[in-house]
Amino acid sequence: MRDFTENLKPAVPTGPDTLAKERSQSSLPVDDLSAHLFPDGFLERQERICKELQKHKVFSKQNQMDLARPDRYKVGLARAKMTRRIAEKLNWDDEDHQMAEYLIDEMSPYALQTAMFIVTLREQGSDEQQAQWLPKAEAWKIIGTYAQTEMGHGSNVRGLELQARYDPKTKEFIFHSPTLTSSKWWPGSLGRTANHAVVVAQLMLPDKAGIYKSYGPHPFITPIRDMKTHKPLPGIVIGDIGPKYGYPAMDNGYMLFDQFRIPHSAFLSRYSKVDPETGAYTKPVNTAVVYGSLTYVRAKIIMHARLVLARAVTVAVRYLSIRRQFRDRDGNQEGAEMAVLDYPTVQIRILPLLATTFALHYSGRAMRELYEKTRRDISSGDFSALAEMHSTSSGLKSLCTTLAADGIEVCRRACGGHGFGGGTGLIALNNEYLSKPTVEGDNWMITQQTSAAIIKQVSTVIANPDAKFADFTSQNLQQFYKAQKYTDKGILLDILHNDKAIVDAFSKRVADVSFKAHKERIEKKRSWNSMLIQLHKLSRAHSQAMLVRHFHEALESDSTISSKLQPVMRDCFRLFALYTMDIEAREFYNAGGVTNEQLDALPDRIQELMAKIRPHAVNLVDAWRIPEYLLDSSLGRYDGKVYEALFHKAHRLNPLNRETFNPNFWEDEIVMGKNDSEAILAKL
Amino acid sequence: MRDFTENLKPAVPTGPDTLAKERSQSSLPVDDLSAHLFPDGFLERQERICKELQKHKVFSKQNQMDLARPDRYKVGLARAKMTRRIAEKLNWDDEDHQMAEYLIDEMSPYALQTAMFIVTLREQGSDEQQAQWLPKAEAWKIIGTYAQTEMGHGSNVRGLELQARYDPKTKEFIFHSPTLTSSKWWPGSLGRTANHAVVVAQLMLPDKAGIYKSYGPHPFITPIRDMKTHKPLPGIVIGDIGPKYGYPAMDNGYMLFDQFRIPHSAFLSRYSKVDPETGAYTKPVNTAVVYGSLTYVRAKIIMHARLVLARAVTVAVRYLSIRRQFRDRDGNQEGAEMAVLDYPTVQIRILPLLATTFALHYSGRAMRELYEKTRRDISSGDFSALAEMHSTSSGLKSLCTTLAADGIEVCRRACGGHGFGGGTGLIALNNEYLSKPTVEGDNWMITQQTSAAIIKQVSTVIANPDAKFADFTSQNLQQFYKAQKYTDKGILLDILHNDKAIVDAFSKRVADVSFKAHKERIEKKRSWNSMLIQLHKLSRAHSQAMLVRHFHEALESDSTISSKLQPVMRDCFRLFALYTMDIEAREFYNAGGVTNEQLDALPDRIQELMAKIRPHAVNLVDAWRIPEYLLDSSLGRYDGKVYEALFHKAHRLNPLNRETFNPNFWEDEIVMGKNDSEAILAKL
Repeated sequence: MRDFTENLKPAVPTGPDTLAKERSQSSLPVDDLSAHLFPDGFLERQERICKELQKHKVFSKQNQMDLARPDRYKVGLARAKMTRRIAEKLNWDDEDHQMAEYLIDEMSPYALQTAMFIVTLREQGSDEQQAQWLPKAEAWKIIGTYAQTEMGHGSNVRGLELQARYDPKTKEFIFHSPTLTSSKWWPGSLGRTANHAVVVAQLMLPDKAGIYKSYGPHPFITPIRDMKTHKPLPGIVIGDIGPKYGYPAMDNGYMLFDQFRIPHSAFLSRYSKVDPETGAYTKPVNTAVVYGSLTYVRAKIIMHARLVLARAVTVAVRYLSIRRQFRDRDGNQEGAEMAVLDYPTVQIRILPLLATTFALHYSGRAMRELYEKTRRDISSGDFSALAEMHSTSSGLKSLCTTLAADGIEVCRRACGGHGFGGGTGLIALNNEYLSKPTVEGDNWMITQQTSAAIIKQVSTVIANPDAKFADFTSQNLQQFYKAQKYTDKGILLDILHNDKAIVDAFSKRVADVSFKAHKERIEKKRSWNSMLIQLHKLSRAHSQAMLVRHFHEALESDSTISSKLQPVMRDCFRLFALYTMDIEAREFYNAGGVTNEQLDALPDRIQELMAKIRPHAVNLVDAWRIPEYLLDSSLGRYDGKVYEALFHKAHRLNPLNRETFNPNFWEDEIVMGKNDSEAILAKL
Repeated sequence: MRDFTENLKPAVPTGPDTLAKERSQSSLPVDDLSAHLFPDGFLERQERICKELQKHKVFSKQNQMDLARPDRYKVGLARAKMTRRIAEKLNWDDEDHQMAEYLIDEMSPYALQTAMFIVTLREQGSDEQQAQWLPKAEAWKIIGTYAQTEMGHGSNVRGLELQARYDPKTKEFIFHSPTLTSSKWWPGSLGRTANHAVVVAQLMLPDKAGIYKSYGPHPFITPIRDMKTHKPLPGIVIGDIGPKYGYPAMDNGYMLFDQFRIPHSAFLSRYSKVDPETGAYTKPVNTAVVYGSLTYVRAKIIMHARLVLARAVTVAVRYLSIRRQFRDRDGNQEGAEMAVLDYPTVQIRILPLLATTFALHYSGRAMRELYEKTRRDISSGDFSALAEMHSTSSGLKSLCTTLAADGIEVCRRACGGHGFGGGTGLIALNNEYLSKPTVEGDNWMITQQTSAAIIKQVSTVIANPDAKFADFTSQNLQQFYKAQKYTDKGILLDILHNDKAIVDAFSKRVADVSFKAHKERIEKKRSWNSMLIQLHKLSRAHSQAMLVRHFHEALESDSTISSKLQPVMRDCFRLFALYTMDIEAREFYNAGGVTNEQLDALPDRIQELMAKIRPHAVNLVDAWRIPEYLLDSSLGRYDGKVYEALFHKAHRLNPLNRETFNPNFWEDEIVMGKNDSEAILAKL
């Protein structure tokens, strides 16, 4: 369809010209920064996989926002199959496969196969069970899910209702759902795809008198569908739970059992054991070990957050550099209007988030190192670091996913009208990502784990004020404790001019909040639940201090931050830290070390830092190297052709524009010339 | 399909039992509160229209989340037609019709007909133009849109690029789109539905030498589609812009013109005039009047916000009373788990929002009164209040829609896992409502209008310190000015025990922020743009003070708040005000009148207030009387059958569960037994 619009161009200055100017005005070496952020082959892998995916039509995202949810599942399944076939053909390793899923950018119907199903079999299955199941699972001959959460219980795993009652006579377990709320609910891949499941149920064993008692939730492995017909096995009801905020391609499912029998060998018995003859129970050496795979997933979530936020910020920074609105009220009323990103009210929303991407990066890196170290320790039988790993990952998971989830929406809203349109690339991202503040530990709940650990550490420090502690948290608490004892409020920290003073202010503040919580809980014996808000704030203070400290450590000691990168990255560090401090200013004041006058000066200092970072904004987001295919955004395109892309998508691709409608309210007809009102009602 | 799940019930205590207990434990008279909130026939109308809608299948919301976006438009059009037909048959008035749209709860393809198209014709059309167009428009024989926003310009109306060039020879205007960015973009109903449009274009008139000059944007009325074929008229390109965050049923459109001629009479000439012979321009007496319909829409948005937030809070309060999670860590480990709403970390997210619904109510009411008064003034030729109406509505629109939009998401996240599922009723609400912080004046931009007005008022007060001012803002500034001059910081305000002191603290804080902004801008001549963040904070302080003041005034003087309502409503007032104060605590400290010690005491005071309000939470949300049809929520049902509804929707209604899939990655087939892989690719 050719028409006069083909000859039209956007008003000047154009997007491409604007971005070219933005890129040349900054001295920041983009390639150096990329190399620093991705030293490990990530970018090479990203490019290679991205090229391959774009060869196949099934991975096209062009019209997917127009599809009905059932079609999104079907497309998702087709994509998941194709991905696996390509992986076999091209000999992809696990990381290649994960990269493909990251780029396709939807929760796939096979998503639990590796991360949850196989990982659990490896971690919880005995050697015999692994020999029985892993070959089939790893070849994807069987498709698995991990069925733990129920309709009535998520966070409180101990409260799960599904029963697995052992019958020593037949040597079988009997799965039974006593209530509607005991239905499994949410497990990914369960609804339509999986034919096998790791199922978590209350292990119920008889004593000698035949009286049953629960030994808490334990994992079992079982087929759930017929391998030929793919129908649920007799005694099982399964289905997809329906549309959700995001995850349209994923079949999150429900499942109930009616006296369903599975053999004794279904009980995953690497750590816990049930004697097949007597039904006697042997408990694991370390109970924390059953949370291993959850902790792994949580660590991955944190590492993912920086890339998600970088994507949203990339869209916002590029578009808002190009988008123009009003002339300067006090300035020249001729010439081009101002770039939206030049308004401080836009900068204050976007540039701290740009700085946050780096903060997340350095703590993500630290988390990965901690996870790997912990895993090495565990495999050599040392479980001592697991508790710290769990507590650290809880607080950081909560803070980082909140920052990323809220950040996406801030970026989207900052894009104004076009931010509400389908061209942002941020709608699907938001819809998918909004699961993250809830899954794998609700962000408001899991912070208790962090705070509980810190309160314990305070007790230890008070009991051993002169001990030598290995971990930073205890060292910091100890220093604060001694300073309080001997010098009261301590010295003034020069947060406006000294980077180390900023780090110290965050350390001091978390120590202060820690001792106050300790006093309430331990000295005043205040009830835990009445302190929950305070405990949440403590975890946040702790995690913020970690983000600031890891960022600063990198600036001080990472030689891959070249001298050309240093000044801009330091300003990003200062912006992230002082912006965070400004929001929580009273806690810093109350901790001592900073004065009200200093805190009053923060807004101006923040604005000054934003003005310094602003010229580098486009180069900074470029360094994150989000590929166009993943970005999937008219607004955030690398080439700046924002308006051309928006118009092309609407005018050439939108299926709704292929039909002509009847607008007369007194006529039933909807599409002109079709008598379609019945057909439309039938869809409802 | 009958199966064993039919006999299953949720675990005890059940939802219905829990809600019955919640309702009986509170002494709050729900009917009294409803009567107070809706004194004007709203509830009667709501019930009457709701009943009617539910008679027709087309209004069923049951499966709409499963539909593709093009089908959502078709259903939307079918619903809009049916609504109009029912309205004719039952003789509905405008408010009845608006109630129907509110209950159907989607932006309808006819949504601009009344609020924008007809209103603009009425406000901007000359008597002859009204005679020509209004009868057809009011009978909906023609369907109209209001086409102002362009691809390249939204907020800056003066920057619109579409040209309307007058040709005195033919006495025609020539619409022409010189660039791609001059394309109209966003107007509702434009994409597929409307056949007429009010189009805003740069009025270009020739001087005597024939040189054209722009007289700024002006509205025109023109047909845009052929009344028989519904195809765009020659010289016009029109289409739907594609999927957006929300508004799936609305065809937001684009439109470009290629030398498209319209008669002189198309120029809406109630205020501005163009001499048909010479092209000479007569400007309107008061230029602000052209923003009349925008201000009307903005006022409506504010009045709507309270109901939107009330809906989200209703879902959260009911579900979180029923949902149980963990036992009290310090308490009894037997019996039922704790209701989630009993955790302070949940209360701190939900209960201040519950209090906010009332705060929005009283200021919405005040806004409506101000709007009506202003309209009366205007029709009697008095434009003096228009500026205040504009500035007040700007700040309140910004604050209220931000509170409501963020509040929906807070409620959704607080619902945990099920909050991410389709059963909340909050997903569609969120998607629709997320437009509101942007439309009709971006929330970060329009606050400038409020702040500019306040800075002017400060100047006036300083110049006339002893004048008698009629408006509260000036009186407050005057009082602060004099107190500062003579008593420095003033007296201590007992915010923890005295309601009036709370109001005074908000007044003092906004006055302090106002004088500081005035000093920067007027004394120090600081540039406007460098002050934007500070100006945004000033507007927020002003609007928050209004919310607090209107709430308090109602408690003091509205006799329909009965003595049984007073204590709970007072606690809601305190919670809203002190929660807000806690977030902005440093501004209150800096204004003087409250001490750090008082501010440190706020968290405990807030927790105490929440504990007092908690037993009344279900009754308080019940009083908002959100009908089940509008709520459309498994979690928020009045009867508390949360789990039954979730399961019913998934197990009985989800269309995806009607097909069986092939999970084998080495086979192309998606739905079992169908060779459907090509058909699926074709949808992409």
